[in-house]
Amino acid sequence: MTYCVGLVLDRGIVMMSDTRTNAGVDNISVFKKMVNWEVPGERVLTMMTSGNLATTQALVSILDERTKAPDERNPTLLTVPSMFQAATLVGQTLRNVIQDTNNISQSSGFSATIILGGQIAGSPPRLFNIYPEGNFIEAGDDTPFFQTGETKYGRPIIVRAYDPAMSFEEAIKLLLVSFDSTIKANLSVGLPLDVTVYAKDSLRVTQEFRITQEDEYFNVISNGWGAALKVAFSSLPDFSFGETDTAP
Amino acid sequence: MTYCVGLVLDRGIVMMSDTRTNAGVDNISVFKKMVNWEVPGERVLTMMTSGNLATTQALVSILDERTKAPDERNPTLLTVPSMFQAATLVGQTLRNVIQDTNNISQSSGFSATIILGGQIAGSPPRLFNIYPEGNFIEAGDDTPFFQTGETKYGRPIIVRAYDPAMSFEEAIKLLLVSFDSTIKANLSVGLPLDVTVYAKDSLRVTQEFRITQEDEYFNVISNGWGAALKVAFSSLPDFSFGETDTAP
Repeated sequence: MTYCVGLVLDRGIVMMSDTRTNAGVDNISVFKKMVNWEVPGERVLTMMTSGNLATTQALVSILDERTKAPDERNPTLLTVPSMFQAATLVGQTLRNVIQDTNNISQSSGFSATIILGGQIAGSPPRLFNIYPEGNFIEAGDDTPFFQTGETKYGRPIIVRAYDPAMSFEEAIKLLLVSFDSTIKANLSVGLPLDVTVYAKDSLRVTQEFRITQEDEYFNVISNGWGAALKVAFSSLPDFSFGETDTAP
Repeated sequence: MTYCVGLVLDRGIVMMSDTRTNAGVDNISVFKKMVNWEVPGERVLTMMTSGNLATTQALVSILDERTKAPDERNPTLLTVPSMFQAATLVGQTLRNVIQDTNNISQSSGFSATIILGGQIAGSPPRLFNIYPEGNFIEAGDDTPFFQTGETKYGRPIIVRAYDPAMSFEEAIKLLLVSFDSTIKANLSVGLPLDVTVYAKDSLRVTQEFRITQEDEYFNVISNGWGAALKVAFSSLPDFSFGETDTAP
């Protein structure tokens, strides 16, 4: 499994992905699931992948090769004029990769889902969730974030604490709490975590870094969140049997 | 879907189940998923059901009818000498109900999973998770609770705040937080909630009640938890970009 989250904030986009891949519990590896394409001053595209690793690696390689050997007939992520067309290109490429494999195998295990975020000069930042069929949806004011992979454990805290006006620092803290809850509950999601921060209209990757097991701040959050949750829990009034009607 | 949790505490057992059943999003109903059998002073058995409603209703009806027209060849939940044999009886009955349906339909949609807890005089309280195949596992010191159904959203708070020494009042508060997180994230789990509290060695149902949408305490918890989470979240130190190595 995998866990990836992309958050749209008033001031930009924050993306975080884990790095654990597994084919059974006895075949666990670390692979980066986040890739950035950047033309400083003109565009930044950040993609996070979840699903079959052969599929997602092929997708990244094809998209990346095209940017290096551009062909007039083939648009590339570095030349498409809009985020919508970037999402379309990623979706079509993803669908083709999956179909190629499906022509040989009837298995449905080669699927993948993509989160694509970024900005191209002249338009605001946008965030897309791209499906194996190649179609996609865009984050909006009502649903300003996307999760893929093992999404459930870490969802309640995002639903409760997300605020579009939050700072990048707060957003990273929120995502670390969400990832830590997931990692504590599910073996298929694991450290290190990759992070890309994109400040609106900067048209450059603002920050790109990796958080490892040894990261001091991650351990402060991981240990502190357990304690903070217990304090929060204690702060709520206790249940009293008198308050609720008791059935016979 | 469904959400049921059974918690073993030092002082007894607390069980909570939701009541929402759905066959598609346009066919939602309320059904009780919790049933108690009691011989005061001798035994208390509490069962929570998740899965196909026709299967679980048949299971409950068969088990219940047997207790009313006992037959020397057929053990009943009111006569088996141990919780282990009660779990065996529930498991065998469950497997038979599922097999009967599967003989007619090849669908795998008639499965169900059961949480069974309680105490029979002469032995300590026990809690079992019973599978559609009829076999089961028992809660122990390492894993002192079972969840069935839509388990993921509400798991992190149980993992973090559960303590076997907690009072019944605290345990109910914990379960309400866990259920509220689930209800907020997933349409297939809904109020009202049924609760059974069993005090160790009492051999009587200690408390049995229903928590509805109008329940004042539930609303205090539901609203209060959001606020308490935000306080907890703010109490953690903010991330600082200086602390983590930044990749080029």
